[in-house]
Amino acid sequence: MSASPDTIPQKPVLLTGASGALGRVLTKALGAQGWTLRLTDRVPFPDPLPEGARFQLADLEDGPAILRLAEGCGTILHFGGISVEHPFETVIGPNIRGLYHAYEAARRERARMVFASSNHAIGFHERKEVLDDDCALAPDGYYGLSKAYGEMMGGLYRDKHGVESVFLRIGSCFPEPIDARMLATWLSYADLTRLITCATLAPSLGPKGSVVIWGASNNSRMTWWRRDGRDVIGWAPQDSADSYAPALEGKTSGNPVIERYQGGGFTALDYSRTEPTAR
Amino acid sequence: MSASPDTIPQKPVLLTGASGALGRVLTKALGAQGWTLRLTDRVPFPDPLPEGARFQLADLEDGPAILRLAEGCGTILHFGGISVEHPFETVIGPNIRGLYHAYEAARRERARMVFASSNHAIGFHERKEVLDDDCALAPDGYYGLSKAYGEMMGGLYRDKHGVESVFLRIGSCFPEPIDARMLATWLSYADLTRLITCATLAPSLGPKGSVVIWGASNNSRMTWWRRDGRDVIGWAPQDSADSYAPALEGKTSGNPVIERYQGGGFTALDYSRTEPTAR
Amino acid sequence: MSASPDTIPQKPVLLTGASGALGRVLTKALGAQGWTLRLTDRVPFPDPLPEGARFQLADLEDGPAILRLAEGCGTILHFGGISVEHPFETVIGPNIRGLYHAYEAARRERARMVFASSNHAIGFHERKEVLDDDCALAPDGYYGLSKAYGEMMGGLYRDKHGVESVFLRIGSCFPEPIDARMLATWLSYADLTRLITCATLAPSLGPKGSVVIWGASNNSRMTWWRRDGRDVIGWAPQDSADSYAPALEGKTSGNPVIERYQGGGFTALDYSRTEPTAR
Amino acid sequence: MSASPDTIPQKPVLLTGASGALGRVLTKALGAQGWTLRLTDRVPFPDPLPEGARFQLADLEDGPAILRLAEGCGTILHFGGISVEHPFETVIGPNIRGLYHAYEAARRERARMVFASSNHAIGFHERKEVLDDDCALAPDGYYGLSKAYGEMMGGLYRDKHGVESVFLRIGSCFPEPIDARMLATWLSYADLTRLITCATLAPSLGPKGSVVIWGASNNSRMTWWRRDGRDVIGWAPQDSADSYAPALEGKTSGNPVIERYQGGGFTALDYSRTEPTAR
Amino acid sequence: MSASPDTIPQKPVLLTGASGALGRVLTKALGAQGWTLRLTDRVPFPDPLPEGARFQLADLEDGPAILRLAEGCGTILHFGGISVEHPFETVIGPNIRGLYHAYEAARRERARMVFASSNHAIGFHERKEVLDDDCALAPDGYYGLSKAYGEMMGGLYRDKHGVESVFLRIGSCFPEPIDARMLATWLSYADLTRLITCATLAPSLGPKGSVVIWGASNNSRMTWWRRDGRDVIGWAPQDSADSYAPALEGKTSGNPVIERYQGGGFTALDYSRTEPTAR
Amino acid sequence: MSASPDTIPQKPVLLTGASGALGRVLTKALGAQGWTLRLTDRVPFPDPLPEGARFQLADLEDGPAILRLAEGCGTILHFGGISVEHPFETVIGPNIRGLYHAYEAARRERARMVFASSNHAIGFHERKEVLDDDCALAPDGYYGLSKAYGEMMGGLYRDKHGVESVFLRIGSCFPEPIDARMLATWLSYADLTRLITCATLAPSLGPKGSVVIWGASNNSRMTWWRRDGRDVIGWAPQDSADSYAPALEGKTSGNPVIERYQGGGFTALDYSRTEPTAR
Repeated sequence: MSASPDTIPQKPVLLTGASGALGRVLTKALGAQGWTLRLTDRVPFPDPLPEGARFQLADLEDGPAILRLAEGCGTILHFGGISVEHPFETVIGPNIRGLYHAYEAARRERARMVFASSNHAIGFHERKEVLDDDCALAPDGYYGLSKAYGEMMGGLYRDKHGVESVFLRIGSCFPEPIDARMLATWLSYADLTRLITCATLAPSLGPKGSVVIWGASNNSRMTWWRRDGRDVIGWAPQDSADSYAPALEGKTSGNPVIERYQGGGFTALDYSRTEPTAR
Repeated sequence: MSASPDTIPQKPVLLTGASGALGRVLTKALGAQGWTLRLTDRVPFPDPLPEGARFQLADLEDGPAILRLAEGCGTILHFGGISVEHPFETVIGPNIRGLYHAYEAARRERARMVFASSNHAIGFHERKEVLDDDCALAPDGYYGLSKAYGEMMGGLYRDKHGVESVFLRIGSCFPEPIDARMLATWLSYADLTRLITCATLAPSLGPKGSVVIWGASNNSRMTWWRRDGRDVIGWAPQDSADSYAPALEGKTSGNPVIERYQGGGFTALDYSRTEPTAR
Repeated sequence: MSASPDTIPQKPVLLTGASGALGRVLTKALGAQGWTLRLTDRVPFPDPLPEGARFQLADLEDGPAILRLAEGCGTILHFGGISVEHPFETVIGPNIRGLYHAYEAARRERARMVFASSNHAIGFHERKEVLDDDCALAPDGYYGLSKAYGEMMGGLYRDKHGVESVFLRIGSCFPEPIDARMLATWLSYADLTRLITCATLAPSLGPKGSVVIWGASNNSRMTWWRRDGRDVIGWAPQDSADSYAPALEGKTSGNPVIERYQGGGFTALDYSRTEPTAR
Repeated sequence: MSASPDTIPQKPVLLTGASGALGRVLTKALGAQGWTLRLTDRVPFPDPLPEGARFQLADLEDGPAILRLAEGCGTILHFGGISVEHPFETVIGPNIRGLYHAYEAARRERARMVFASSNHAIGFHERKEVLDDDCALAPDGYYGLSKAYGEMMGGLYRDKHGVESVFLRIGSCFPEPIDARMLATWLSYADLTRLITCATLAPSLGPKGSVVIWGASNNSRMTWWRRDGRDVIGWAPQDSADSYAPALEGKTSGNPVIERYQGGGFTALDYSRTEPTAR
Repeated sequence: MSASPDTIPQKPVLLTGASGALGRVLTKALGAQGWTLRLTDRVPFPDPLPEGARFQLADLEDGPAILRLAEGCGTILHFGGISVEHPFETVIGPNIRGLYHAYEAARRERARMVFASSNHAIGFHERKEVLDDDCALAPDGYYGLSKAYGEMMGGLYRDKHGVESVFLRIGSCFPEPIDARMLATWLSYADLTRLITCATLAPSLGPKGSVVIWGASNNSRMTWWRRDGRDVIGWAPQDSADSYAPALEGKTSGNPVIERYQGGGFTALDYSRTEPTAR
Repeated sequence: MSASPDTIPQKPVLLTGASGALGRVLTKALGAQGWTLRLTDRVPFPDPLPEGARFQLADLEDGPAILRLAEGCGTILHFGGISVEHPFETVIGPNIRGLYHAYEAARRERARMVFASSNHAIGFHERKEVLDDDCALAPDGYYGLSKAYGEMMGGLYRDKHGVESVFLRIGSCFPEPIDARMLATWLSYADLTRLITCATLAPSLGPKGSVVIWGASNNSRMTWWRRDGRDVIGWAPQDSADSYAPALEGKTSGNPVIERYQGGGFTALDYSRTEPTAR
């Protein structure tokens, strides 16, 4: 994609968690689009920096550092923090305190927040349910809880301070789908990049000031997630997990908890409910 | 109320935040009902201990201490933590980490959680809205956000571990209503006591395993909150703010933000949204 | 003093350490001048709030809270932190980290910093020396070192970010002088108030962007401190310790270290130099 | 260099930051001179230990550990801590608290401190200025500020406790100069070693008890730094960057801030002063 | 008691926990004996300071501060820290880390440690046992465990560094005995003072370098504790709880655990052993 | 060894420090015996997981995480924490706080604790002494002190809560002995595995509820350690260091402190006792 005025944000874009898997994908792709990126992570950035990008080591728990990094930015792509299930105490620092710092930064800069939320914020909905963007949050672990907290914090900052948020509930963002569940939840790197591009460039997030996006590619097996804000930001996924179906279709877990709930494997970690009740 | 087998829980009841205003009210009232109470707070209990009550100094942030305090308890009345708006960093320790410890205790003991949530977990709904118990969470500050987080953590512990929760969204629990808003939101101490009694003694919390209760007395001006789980636990408020109406009716803030939203004064703290959008 | 446009800052003024002795004096006096004050401290404000003043509990070590408190302010009167000698570990949090937060706030807001430095930042100069505002810093303890650090941080923020600073090296600011040394170092509350008023209202701090002020009243025994920036801000002290001289003149310590150095008693705390060398 | 009584300190020498670049250079060189070294760092020492050297893992923030390590030492070579610009919160622990521990150790042992300060403690002086050792401190970032703080702490410990200090303002200590600025600021490893040797062995630091040394080799382009204490300790640099001039002379940054100030690149990090004023 | 050379230690004496109950008793009594006292606590000293005494606020967890306070002292009376049962996390800071700082100070100064240990370090011995000073440690809670840890740390510092220790296992040191158990365990304030005096002034602690003292007055009901080091330091208690026997003899707890073990009430806190085994 | 009902614990076994040297040995060996293992460490497990084993990252300082990991376990093999001498501040977190969490877990689960204590808990006994399991604890450093603390905590949990403990005082557990001292202290991996197997499977720990085991193989040079609880658990070492004697016998340290005390090299670290007294 060649750079044109329409595809380049007017202000720099801050990307937290730049040294993580998705951070590196986005740095490369958005840098190639000619974006001015400010990158940060608590570990050094392992790749060559694209032109127009600056990287600074910082800890998400260091509030003043994060606030300063965001100065002048128009968008914050918040991909930093813990990205899988861990004990509560491991999650609270980067994902609760760190998130707060990111939102404070967005408020200060009147920047838009693009928050890497997760399907694990709603993972305890059953797979047979069809969810719209106003479904109840139903986290499936401490990680998912931190993402649900983030969406609510986004609501607070929207309602009180007018901060815009794109809540991107990422399904499974990997180079390729690797099990049957991902036939539904897979989000290709290219679709992620397009999504972030749209989320950043969309002139408005609608009258409410925030949108939820179900972060899956155009997978015909994705029947759980329906209405969301993709039209508001102009995103349409172009890839699909369907071609992987023959190879993966039977690759299920055999665990009834995992297969019952949208959150998959995370829901079964430490699962101890003995008499499942209807939701 | 004289003690009868039906009104005394079979197992001890842990009350956190015992030295706070509501904690002291409940200690006195539940103690008088003959309950076996385990009290804790991070400051000493200022009143005489009722018979059957034990108090232990502990910090909600000290997980192993809280877990041990709860051993053998059948119900946790979680009233501890910060109870008004404060900076994020002041709230996170007692209200996020401390809450987690309370829920871990409930899970370990297979105890029921009665969680002192707050109207501030939904404070950014407008007063003209009518909310049922499945309304979206809409916190009005860091305090309210910690309460919303608590309700979601309760959902997680219910879905994953079968922990029962009563989410008590307290309106304004004071000796008397003192302004016009409280004509709607006031919860009398006696109604609170009855509510906690019902929440603790109810044989079941229904098929879902959790209920939301709107914590207001029988105030005719309370038109914002409608359906909740009171029938499930058998609670009906008996007091009313109505008799205070002549004295308080005009006692409004004059601040359009405060008067617009259910959360009242908390919504206006640091409010900076310049173009309020429709919700 | 009645309020006039010339004596009221255009933007709100943040006062840290508002609940301390000098903070309370300034709150009362500046509030009476009609200033819009934002007050903060980590303990509640003990007096009635003047009209136009708001108080918020916050810890100087909580960076994001301090940064938010300063939003929209044009001047920061930084009187918070430890104000006497204490072990290093007691000083570092409020006076080093807390100061950094105050300067970050000033930078963000392009506000002027009026920093309550101290004679203890230069306390190891001898009393027989005559110091101008470009004298070397010579702290006389961990407290004084934190003030010297603050002046240097002010220099950094001036040189790198253009933040203006008034470095107010307070002598002894008490209701009355109480020993012989204070015949030189005493700063009356009224002179302090005038000084802060001038420091805040001065249209410019000169070409350099910062001034040092020797914070003593018009005491004829003050022979140690000479050139400073008072003309730049238009301050002239009006009170004098001289009338206390008959009562206090002989009230010296008898300790040669104390009597030798400008810092007085602080210099002698833990003093252990066995062979004093010339400076 | 073969060991002779004149070149070996009577007491062991503590070297902090031993596992860093300069620490390793010094360990090898001083060990080869027959010195008794006590080495410490928070990461293991990566090289073979010279005879007479002991290494112990310790964190500079662990005061009692540092104090014990220094027992019996006559000199502390304080090279530990962060050595480039980082956010304030990253710097404060090792460079402020850690430094305090090093000075407490020096006081306890009546040891001489050789403090690895930096040109960044005075980096906001312009290159056209000529500085003597009594020039004002002018740090160019949080790192430089920690070094300036260290020099002032050294002054406090000298004035109050008689602790001797060599404040070594290192220019650019690398195997070779690599840009035009280093033609002025380069300090060869051999000159560093000679400097440390002199600083340690000098019988006296003069009447004042402390000296500042400009840490650059004998570079003819070094015109910024003039008078210092080298004669007091008997050091004369023997290497020179001059021979690198043909290759490096044009290798400048093109950034007017960098080229204007002595601190070079560090001064430009986050530089935001819009109307540079005269100093 | 008038001061004579034999009753005044040659070096200053550091007393930690000076603002506590026993600290205040000792400050008054030892000050009256003409001792040079250095007092410290984390809260201000509430009484008038005796002549020759200095007080400094410090936290036992601040190692360098404690180490400096002890400089030049010949004896450390370590009465600081938590003095009753509390959750582990409350005890670890002051009683484990703080104790370490006190022992480091003793090592540095080659000072004698007089450590306020407790009968709770051996509280799980049965009352029918007769203990000598070499009995096994048997702590009865986290508090007692911290005291047992202290005695073992004292052993380490004795064996490795030659630090002398008096391990004073205090029974019940109150103005008067107040229950039947204290008829055995009571230590009068006067006997405590004499004990501390002897512990400080004893020229030697015997060949081993440490002694254990059972801290009870001359109570005829004290049959649990037998051999100790009192002859080594020349202490003989002069008071007795016997005269309180008529009033207190029946004042027992009725709790078989409490009455079985020497530690009394502390042993029964959270006691949960269901099948007590023989020790 | 093939799995039989008698050799497989009825409940899962928690192993802390699983990623350490001994943890890996035990994981492999116990896993091969068909045990259901729950493994944890703060760094990932580097080997393939045996069937029936689960690994979870957790920090021993995270109490609630450790308590949850232990749920349902019948035995805790506590091998986590620091395993060599380090500064106090490095040891206290994992070895004091972490140990407390392990014991809390054992109490909660009514599980047996098999605690990896160390000869360094008694290292300051002389080699010429013959120790039985009731010998006095005599730690030889902060590490050994943490192990002695652990044994005393085990006593507290036994006496107060009925928790069973095997205190395994490991000598030198390495693939092979590598110096003369290890001819006495060596414990082969196979003997360790058998020991842990016996400690876990023993139906009872005798009337007292705890045993001490001297953790050395069947070495004829081991003359220091005599009576212990091996018969109670049915352990008999089968390997011996004797065959290494010809190669190692002269491999002594030459340091009289090391050679005098059982703790060997650890006793000499920082050793400063100038006049060794008899013990």
